[in-house]
Amino acid sequence: MNTFGERYRVTVFGESHGAAIGCVIDGLPPGYEIDLDAVRADLARRAPGNSPTATARRETDNFTVVSGLLNGRTTGAALTAYARNSDTRSHDYSADVPRPGHSDYPASVKYFGFNDRRGGGIFSGRLTAPLVFAGAIAKQILRGKFGAEITARALSIAGETDEAAQTENILAAKAAGDSVGGVIECAAAGLPPGLGEPLYGSIESQIAALVFAVPAVKGIEFGDGFGFAARRGSEVSDGMAFGASGEVEFLANHNGGILGGITTGQPLIFRAAIKPTPTIALPQRTVNLADKTSVTHSFAGRHDPCIVLRAIPVIEAVCAIALMQFDLTKPI
Amino acid sequence: MNTFGERYRVTVFGESHGAAIGCVIDGLPPGYEIDLDAVRADLARRAPGNSPTATARRETDNFTVVSGLLNGRTTGAALTAYARNSDTRSHDYSADVPRPGHSDYPASVKYFGFNDRRGGGIFSGRLTAPLVFAGAIAKQILRGKFGAEITARALSIAGETDEAAQTENILAAKAAGDSVGGVIECAAAGLPPGLGEPLYGSIESQIAALVFAVPAVKGIEFGDGFGFAARRGSEVSDGMAFGASGEVEFLANHNGGILGGITTGQPLIFRAAIKPTPTIALPQRTVNLADKTSVTHSFAGRHDPCIVLRAIPVIEAVCAIALMQFDLTKPI
Amino acid sequence: MNTFGERYRVTVFGESHGAAIGCVIDGLPPGYEIDLDAVRADLARRAPGNSPTATARRETDNFTVVSGLLNGRTTGAALTAYARNSDTRSHDYSADVPRPGHSDYPASVKYFGFNDRRGGGIFSGRLTAPLVFAGAIAKQILRGKFGAEITARALSIAGETDEAAQTENILAAKAAGDSVGGVIECAAAGLPPGLGEPLYGSIESQIAALVFAVPAVKGIEFGDGFGFAARRGSEVSDGMAFGASGEVEFLANHNGGILGGITTGQPLIFRAAIKPTPTIALPQRTVNLADKTSVTHSFAGRHDPCIVLRAIPVIEAVCAIALMQFDLTKPI
Amino acid sequence: MNTFGERYRVTVFGESHGAAIGCVIDGLPPGYEIDLDAVRADLARRAPGNSPTATARRETDNFTVVSGLLNGRTTGAALTAYARNSDTRSHDYSADVPRPGHSDYPASVKYFGFNDRRGGGIFSGRLTAPLVFAGAIAKQILRGKFGAEITARALSIAGETDEAAQTENILAAKAAGDSVGGVIECAAAGLPPGLGEPLYGSIESQIAALVFAVPAVKGIEFGDGFGFAARRGSEVSDGMAFGASGEVEFLANHNGGILGGITTGQPLIFRAAIKPTPTIALPQRTVNLADKTSVTHSFAGRHDPCIVLRAIPVIEAVCAIALMQFDLTKPI
Repeated sequence: MNTFGERYRVTVFGESHGAAIGCVIDGLPPGYEIDLDAVRADLARRAPGNSPTATARRETDNFTVVSGLLNGRTTGAALTAYARNSDTRSHDYSADVPRPGHSDYPASVKYFGFNDRRGGGIFSGRLTAPLVFAGAIAKQILRGKFGAEITARALSIAGETDEAAQTENILAAKAAGDSVGGVIECAAAGLPPGLGEPLYGSIESQIAALVFAVPAVKGIEFGDGFGFAARRGSEVSDGMAFGASGEVEFLANHNGGILGGITTGQPLIFRAAIKPTPTIALPQRTVNLADKTSVTHSFAGRHDPCIVLRAIPVIEAVCAIALMQFDLTKPI
Repeated sequence: MNTFGERYRVTVFGESHGAAIGCVIDGLPPGYEIDLDAVRADLARRAPGNSPTATARRETDNFTVVSGLLNGRTTGAALTAYARNSDTRSHDYSADVPRPGHSDYPASVKYFGFNDRRGGGIFSGRLTAPLVFAGAIAKQILRGKFGAEITARALSIAGETDEAAQTENILAAKAAGDSVGGVIECAAAGLPPGLGEPLYGSIESQIAALVFAVPAVKGIEFGDGFGFAARRGSEVSDGMAFGASGEVEFLANHNGGILGGITTGQPLIFRAAIKPTPTIALPQRTVNLADKTSVTHSFAGRHDPCIVLRAIPVIEAVCAIALMQFDLTKPI
Repeated sequence: MNTFGERYRVTVFGESHGAAIGCVIDGLPPGYEIDLDAVRADLARRAPGNSPTATARRETDNFTVVSGLLNGRTTGAALTAYARNSDTRSHDYSADVPRPGHSDYPASVKYFGFNDRRGGGIFSGRLTAPLVFAGAIAKQILRGKFGAEITARALSIAGETDEAAQTENILAAKAAGDSVGGVIECAAAGLPPGLGEPLYGSIESQIAALVFAVPAVKGIEFGDGFGFAARRGSEVSDGMAFGASGEVEFLANHNGGILGGITTGQPLIFRAAIKPTPTIALPQRTVNLADKTSVTHSFAGRHDPCIVLRAIPVIEAVCAIALMQFDLTKPI
Repeated sequence: MNTFGERYRVTVFGESHGAAIGCVIDGLPPGYEIDLDAVRADLARRAPGNSPTATARRETDNFTVVSGLLNGRTTGAALTAYARNSDTRSHDYSADVPRPGHSDYPASVKYFGFNDRRGGGIFSGRLTAPLVFAGAIAKQILRGKFGAEITARALSIAGETDEAAQTENILAAKAAGDSVGGVIECAAAGLPPGLGEPLYGSIESQIAALVFAVPAVKGIEFGDGFGFAARRGSEVSDGMAFGASGEVEFLANHNGGILGGITTGQPLIFRAAIKPTPTIALPQRTVNLADKTSVTHSFAGRHDPCIVLRAIPVIEAVCAIALMQFDLTKPI
């Protein structure tokens, strides 16, 4: 459904070409002073229309807070914010021709064709804006509480790790009417040891559940992740020793700061695989559901040749929202 | 926490060296005839002590059903089953010396040292037995309802895809006092299109949350997963066409049977990365929390040189439990 | 928190004197044609400012739908609606002087004084407007599915069962700067037998949890309720017999249509006790939290001399929302 | 379903005449020393067979803890306890003849006849034993944390408030093959102000949801409850003043220690209406579902002529479990 979490509960609403998108956040401590400029800065990182590597659709993402905030401080009631949609060109996509690699076809089955298919409806990447809003506040709380910093970056785009080569690849794909994917790496530094729960409450379970809510994510790994599979145990041992400070220190971090679903105190590290934008100008084979014909179609509209860069603040946001679900024992 | 799911709710309990482990399953349809032999067969696949590639610890995993079943049929009440623990050698591990790569250290922080550290307590792989129990029943329901079959296999162990080479590698690691990891691939064939939810309710979110509840899993990917990252959109297009039957057919399955978090009707495919067993006989650097010294320790006890093979039915089980969370519209 | 339910999930937001109030409804079937006129009619029944027996505050309760509805039909995405607040006189109440019988004092403790105290903030009866919105849709679905009708009425006001006497009592209390309470009786007719769950999932548990979310409710009873306490079992036996139709028929309905937490097929009947509005013009003893003095205060502002009549559609609404949490097996 | 709560999560399992009943409790703080003697004392208060006013069925209610407890202290893992059923006379009730006033008929509809009807199955009062187990621990935690004491008593039985008259009435009803009901009043003293949540998270909502999980409860009221309905606001004003200690003190407690769903710091007081045991020896009109005839039946078996006294520790238990759901901010 559209609600996530018990302790920091985020309800997201809206559709790509509907009147508005937004979120309701419950579980904020009362009297907390929110830095809305920092929230806007994260929204700007996600916003389209500000780069040759992104879609030409322009959205101001101008969120208005309508509850839960008074004189700049949280009231303890649910905080609600929404942004009106604008610059929607609903005629770009034919509703009857599902885009390969997109939710169009299975969603039409699930919703019996009644879903708002304009711009992908609820499946649109536009729904990640409220996630960024809620995550930006979560990042502030985690920073204030632990000094924790959550930062993500494009580890690779189109297989390239060099930033210049990444941009070049994106623009080349764009020119070819094509798209490229990549990998985002996210680190949460400064978390204390002991956060998390066994079983389904593991840090990995919570983060993964939210990361897969982000469109185009098709994989996640923590620490060495899939790199563990061909290694021996002795090669990936995160040994420990007492450090100069008299505290337990780790000699390696193959496990990405999580053991048994619980933070170790080392940086929490994970990577998310982002698939190439499925909506491309190059012709693809698909169907026309109205007249039941097989067709080859070129999806003209505005699209991102690569969403990896825009997804970076989204990954940070969902990481922060996931971490807020745990019992942060020290008072905020 | 220890409870997962709304529609098919599984509560797992027990600790590795406690009196018993078990599960409470809610959401079973009334009057359903459970094939307990099939459940036992899955438990046997997971059970230790039946192979040179596994730990020598012998557990009968003899589950007793104490509620929810009458004359072989479900009553509609929660089904509860438990198995007594046996053959526990609690003195194998020193409670004061955390095993690198295991939950020992962060759990001692989280639980202030009060957790049952014998055999890993609640973090033990032994807790996957009740998951297999609950998942085996879920598999039966999905098979009966859709004809769906959920099957997993070791895609690679120690980097090897050949089964003979896999066994050889496991035994070599065992002989060296070491361990190896691997990758499990799981497929759910026969699911109808349209199962799933947008956002946090995505099929990927639900499966991932449960797969990361399985000890030693450090990554998950759906379809091409991380392989998407270096590809162009045009290379990984899951095109569609009307088939001979008049139904929409897919021309490829790069997305592993899921688009927008919803099943497409193609086989659902995911892979899980399993790390090498962290408890190995080779010496590792660690600490003694009692006398606050840094030590080099060899963890003698019985352990699996590779848990990939034993984890296979567990991955099938959690896949089935995750799928049971969705609105399976046709009557069971 | 502010979210209720799994199957028909209602998230309410807003504060009495904030920018807006509203709700997010998840779990609506796709393609459902909502009768917004009927929703507005229920909102009008709850609205203030339309009767001498109600507060003079005027709210249009003009809800705008911003997601989940397209061409008059549900899309399957969460339906979000909000109404802007207006005619708020924030200076009527002194924030430092808690009103006896109201949440002011315990809320100031809970929220450390950061809660929005204007008009009661999140504790205001104004928050019942989004409940009425969500409940009016639930009533439509239940009517369409089962032919079920949910209707509430004022069983008594100020102890009077006669409507003319009720109005007289309300106006007399108003003239005296006082207020009166009453009892609302709600009936849900047309529900099939077999809805509900044992234990915490009982029909009574779900309805009660929601009814107590309505401000001023202090009691609930089903069927004979407290009247059972002084009776013998033989006097309150809901006997059964096969009727002319060949179906099981009940010979009495002391249990209000619920046995073991499950509907019997008879009318579901419950009563809610509504306390007199605590904000009255007559002087009350209270405190000034700012200067720490005990005071006697007359709360001038606009208030309802009796909220029983306005609460009637709210009780219907929460009854409907509660019933939507159960497995309504026949397709909608 | 069979699981209640987020912070102190209680999963109950078992059926009246099945192999065992029990509970899984999650959310216990680690290292907590449980007084099992106090738990057993509460179980003994609920146990049948120890009084002429109760059923002759004898159950030892001898619960065995199988997880979550080590050396008398909680481990932080879920605590699981179960008791085997004994002295079950399954032939006392005819499965085909539903007892009026009991769940038999609607349960047979809901479960298509597959539910375990022996002794009422999951609807049996026997399922309250695990609730008492979980509640007795919750009471200890609340006492240790706040010095809070939760105590219930029979306010009236068969309309009598005098204890001797109550016993007399119960025995008279028993002799007549009949049964009587009553009212239980429960008080929780010592709770700090500020516990609770607005809306569905109100103290009343949580307590009511659990109290209605107890078989035979048909009503609940807080403070003056239904007594509010015929009063004026000025008559039931819970005035405040600064006391000698310099703290806010209440001058009355009409609201039963709760305002706006939040504790005021005054004693929390509620009353539950308990209906007369529906299973009586006097003939009742009912049906035979097998041969579809209307019959008059005398339900011979062992039954409680009044369950009010046995329900007292159950009401205390669910009150404690409900209170454990709130954010108890001071460390346990």
